[in-house]
Amino acid sequence: MFVAKVIGTIVATRKDENLVGLKLMVTRPIDSQGQSIGQSLVAVDSVGAGVGETVLVVRGSPARTVLQNNRAPVDAVIVGIVDDMETLD
Amino acid sequence: MFVAKVIGTIVATRKDENLVGLKLMVTRPIDSQGQSIGQSLVAVDSVGAGVGETVLVVRGSPARTVLQNNRAPVDAVIVGIVDDMETLD
Amino acid sequence: MFVAKVIGTIVATRKDENLVGLKLMVTRPIDSQGQSIGQSLVAVDSVGAGVGETVLVVRGSPARTVLQNNRAPVDAVIVGIVDDMETLD
Amino acid sequence: MFVAKVIGTIVATRKDENLVGLKLMVTRPIDSQGQSIGQSLVAVDSVGAGVGETVLVVRGSPARTVLQNNRAPVDAVIVGIVDDMETLD
Amino acid sequence: MFVAKVIGTIVATRKDENLVGLKLMVTRPIDSQGQSIGQSLVAVDSVGAGVGETVLVVRGSPARTVLQNNRAPVDAVIVGIVDDMETLD
Repeated sequence: MFVAKVIGTIVATRKDENLVGLKLMVTRPIDSQGQSIGQSLVAVDSVGAGVGETVLVVRGSPARTVLQNNRAPVDAVIVGIVDDMETLD
Repeated sequence: MFVAKVIGTIVATRKDENLVGLKLMVTRPIDSQGQSIGQSLVAVDSVGAGVGETVLVVRGSPARTVLQNNRAPVDAVIVGIVDDMETLD
Repeated sequence: MFVAKVIGTIVATRKDENLVGLKLMVTRPIDSQGQSIGQSLVAVDSVGAGVGETVLVVRGSPARTVLQNNRAPVDAVIVGIVDDMETLD
Repeated sequence: MFVAKVIGTIVATRKDENLVGLKLMVTRPIDSQGQSIGQSLVAVDSVGAGVGETVLVVRGSPARTVLQNNRAPVDAVIVGIVDDMETLD
Repeated sequence: MFVAKVIGTIVATRKDENLVGLKLMVTRPIDSQGQSIGQSLVAVDSVGAGVGETVLVVRGSPARTVLQNNRAPVDAVIVGIVDDMETLD
């Protein structure tokens, strides 16, 4: 998993039917100082995250465990809202 | 998933039989300003995407959920046409 | 797998129910000299690791084999405490 | 998937028994101008590719769908010979 | 898969019970000239590889096919000793 800031949303009218109803968010990986540390990724929201919030994103096949529809073509999901991140640096 | 621009097509006459009939597109990951942010990737089109369009690409095993043929050796699929991408930056 | 230093913890009150009770640690990949060699990753602890310790992290679907709950959306797990790392360089 | 040039072969006498009989090729990811765009990867050939040819490589678990032996430890397979790659750039 | 040089070993007394008895090696990806081309990775040895040898490493879920214990949390395995690597460059 990685910590990311939600920086936007995606609107896609024409899409796979198994994506209908899912909220697609643009997320940017960040470090403990809030600095960007990687490329943006689109993730499905499963916890009611909003733009500007700091979240926890899971990638790959494990991300699919939280989806109701197991036919949804999804490889990244927001699974938590980060309240606090305490690090040594 | 990531947002990409479709920049071309691949023609491969000699290929695995389970790829026959699939449309192979060259996609380039982009950010919200349309700038390239990563290496090009070949993805199978599942939504009728054309060259020049902005699309949503899913990678890895989850990509295979949208294929009719579960023997197709595919690790990336275009699953949506992006109408709008609104971000903070 | 990769060797990492545990550099912090994550607190997330609002999260997927299958993450409840799991300890989320921020880990930073390091080389044999303890130098950082990649972006930080959040991993679930399965061996009682503490901040400052050097650990072994497994990623992707294989990471899920050590979890009791097979619905947990987890893609990285700390599976060992590194006592010693001897390398040629 | 990605487009690559086959740049060599690997000889490994001592190996897992499930790799016996598979042809191991060194592939280098390239862009539409033939420029290298990433690190070399070893892939199993499934289409009779030769050194110098431009091919399509699939990675990860999906690569395994084309293998006869489902115990083979393989994470990358050459699944097509690229005849033509037309891109905007 | 990728070609790597075995550069060391890992000792971890406290670890997941399914890792007990497995030999953990530090591997560094190399090109055909023996130059390092990526970050070190810890892999389980399945072919009797020693420090200093050039090996073939498989990653991700496919790596698990060679393990006796299918509960072992392992995402990289050494599956061959490379005798020769002939490339165009």
